[in-house]
Amino acid sequence: MSAQRSYLDWNATAPLRPEARLAMLAALEETGNPSSVHAEGRRARAIVERARDQIAALVGAEPHNVIFTSGATEAATMALTPQWSGAHPIATFLVSAIEHPCVLAGGQFDASATFPVAVTASGVVDFVFLKQLLDLKESTVGAPLLALMLANNETGVIQPAAAAATLVHGAGGYLICDAVQAAGRIPIDLKSLGADALLLSAHKLGGPKGVGALVLAHEARAPMPLIRGGGQERGHRAGTENVAAIAGFGAAAKAAQADLVNMPRIARLRDRLEQAISIRKSARLLSNLLDIHGNEQRSSLNLSSPLQAELPGRLANTTLISLPGARAESLVIQLDLAGIAVSAGSACSSGKVKRSHVLDAMGVDPVIAEGTIRVSLGPTTTEADVDRFLSAWAEIAARHSGRAKHPEGGATL
Amino acid sequence: MSAQRSYLDWNATAPLRPEARLAMLAALEETGNPSSVHAEGRRARAIVERARDQIAALVGAEPHNVIFTSGATEAATMALTPQWSGAHPIATFLVSAIEHPCVLAGGQFDASATFPVAVTASGVVDFVFLKQLLDLKESTVGAPLLALMLANNETGVIQPAAAAATLVHGAGGYLICDAVQAAGRIPIDLKSLGADALLLSAHKLGGPKGVGALVLAHEARAPMPLIRGGGQERGHRAGTENVAAIAGFGAAAKAAQADLVNMPRIARLRDRLEQAISIRKSARLLSNLLDIHGNEQRSSLNLSSPLQAELPGRLANTTLISLPGARAESLVIQLDLAGIAVSAGSACSSGKVKRSHVLDAMGVDPVIAEGTIRVSLGPTTTEADVDRFLSAWAEIAARHSGRAKHPEGGATL
Repeated sequence: MSAQRSYLDWNATAPLRPEARLAMLAALEETGNPSSVHAEGRRARAIVERARDQIAALVGAEPHNVIFTSGATEAATMALTPQWSGAHPIATFLVSAIEHPCVLAGGQFDASATFPVAVTASGVVDFVFLKQLLDLKESTVGAPLLALMLANNETGVIQPAAAAATLVHGAGGYLICDAVQAAGRIPIDLKSLGADALLLSAHKLGGPKGVGALVLAHEARAPMPLIRGGGQERGHRAGTENVAAIAGFGAAAKAAQADLVNMPRIARLRDRLEQAISIRKSARLLSNLLDIHGNEQRSSLNLSSPLQAELPGRLANTTLISLPGARAESLVIQLDLAGIAVSAGSACSSGKVKRSHVLDAMGVDPVIAEGTIRVSLGPTTTEADVDRFLSAWAEIAARHSGRAKHPEGGATL
Repeated sequence: MSAQRSYLDWNATAPLRPEARLAMLAALEETGNPSSVHAEGRRARAIVERARDQIAALVGAEPHNVIFTSGATEAATMALTPQWSGAHPIATFLVSAIEHPCVLAGGQFDASATFPVAVTASGVVDFVFLKQLLDLKESTVGAPLLALMLANNETGVIQPAAAAATLVHGAGGYLICDAVQAAGRIPIDLKSLGADALLLSAHKLGGPKGVGALVLAHEARAPMPLIRGGGQERGHRAGTENVAAIAGFGAAAKAAQADLVNMPRIARLRDRLEQAISIRKSARLLSNLLDIHGNEQRSSLNLSSPLQAELPGRLANTTLISLPGARAESLVIQLDLAGIAVSAGSACSSGKVKRSHVLDAMGVDPVIAEGTIRVSLGPTTTEADVDRFLSAWAEIAARHSGRAKHPEGGATL
């Protein structure tokens, strides 16, 4: 990337970590198919198994419970099914309204079996609502499967997943936890979290695109294979393993784990960014509008769990900010022209900018929601990147403010 | 790979082509998510679309009909479904008995809807049988979907896929053609082939492991998405694209296409290898046993099609040879110790060596089938590699012959 660019879209995809690049280059030199019994095959197999250990270490799982997939979307489609081995029949799919689109799509569940779980105005799953839903569904045949993410990709708000696991297990059900944005940004321990499965993606933590994992809590409780035909991944997922990408995933996971100690530095950058915007906002007398979404969610959390107590309320790297009356797509383009890469919510839907379903679920005014962008930082983000963003944002906000006062100047900012 | 090794297992996986490595290295430098609208995202998008053009060019398809997947196994699971858009209902799954395990697994078809299609002793699909099956199934409700590979992965025998397409289309059905081993080894033109979809894998033609494609003949006729949640791949396959692997796939496809002119050189190496084995066989007075499988299939083909006429009867790079009474696993290990990588049939099932379902379908005597190995050559295979193999094979065969005469010497070779 040119020195003139500031990449502040780490939640869409993170630059490849040097450790991951090195591991991939080494793996690309190895010819073998990991299923082959000859020396070349055994070397490829060793690469895959080393990476499996590294992923397991990142989330406190057993290596044999790590199932490599082509990404978190495949892992979600696989896990979100009523067909789990060793399970009493699963009948309903409960899904928090702020999940990633690949989870909201519901995998292999029928739409008729799907029930959304509301979130509060501060972007946290609504436990009263969840409890009522579980009580209601207890009368139906079969167990519920709940999908609740560990940290939201747009607001960064961390969800009380451990408490949700207790609740849903109490109802005889299962918790699938999308840990894509949380992994490598907060410590994760699958055992204390209590989820039945985690979804992971390499490219959000500095690995390559095109690889992820479904991590099981218990080997005997697994979803039916989605991709069938060979015995790879202990029979859970057929197809020749993506050796180089898996090597990069493992190396990135190890590096991200070591990098967790540097999250306070990222938090300070984020805080400086948010404070600068808030001061400007006050000066513009717009303080009645919520500019930074999800930064007040602490107060709404009255559930305690050992994990919850240790966690910050929000990922250290994520800021979701609004310029009320502006259009997110236009903001992204103006920032891009100023050398800054940010996004309007999730980047998963092929370039189309739609209003955020997350902000809708939080009850944010559509006029505000439509002028919202996500700024997400990472390990190599610098003070200069934040300065460049703040300077560009100030110009854009001033221009917008001018146009808002003189609508004939153009309302499509 | 050390100079002491001869890699003769190209049908399991091919060494990465230098063009693919270069394309991957360049792609790994690009940070963006192809779905992001900023400059970084647009550069990643351009990489994916260039590769799509290259894959389309290799098989004579329209670029927008190339759907990238995590490999041929995913593509097979996706394509093998009764749920196709724009189709009259599909009721039955006809599958040639020599398909790859990922096709034989049947994707999303119920086992009760699946009917195997026999092959002849020379490893070609049995047209009389297929015709009878189609006539029989015409009385049932719904169309048949036939899976017939273009070239078999174990014998290299090329199947009359164009003629099969005509036959199955005449019955109102569909043809899914696994072109994994054929792509980059014989010219492929989807239009004249007449298949409704092709399965491709990058790592068999010199691209990386972990990426493949489902290539459609017509956009309006597509299987229901298998992996759901985002709008990627024109809605056919959700999940962030595997940018670096896709770049490598595209570059490998382009290089493989240019390399087709060098297949006669590989054929000459293969012929030399087979002749040397046959001479030895005659000297050992074992000529009543079929040592080289699939090398006589021409005579059984009495169907003519424009494509068929141009094709050789077998891939130029593949030899499937038996040492009757030996154990394939032991042969592979002995060759490995001698510095030569070969395989016992398909490498898809996590290291476990089972007797070949392909030879079983061809009616080969189990005693012969269990002593069968596959030798597969590639663009960088040399005369020295063939010499090393022949020398090791002669020693192994002599040892085996000695043990066969004196069984107390060990029957587990």
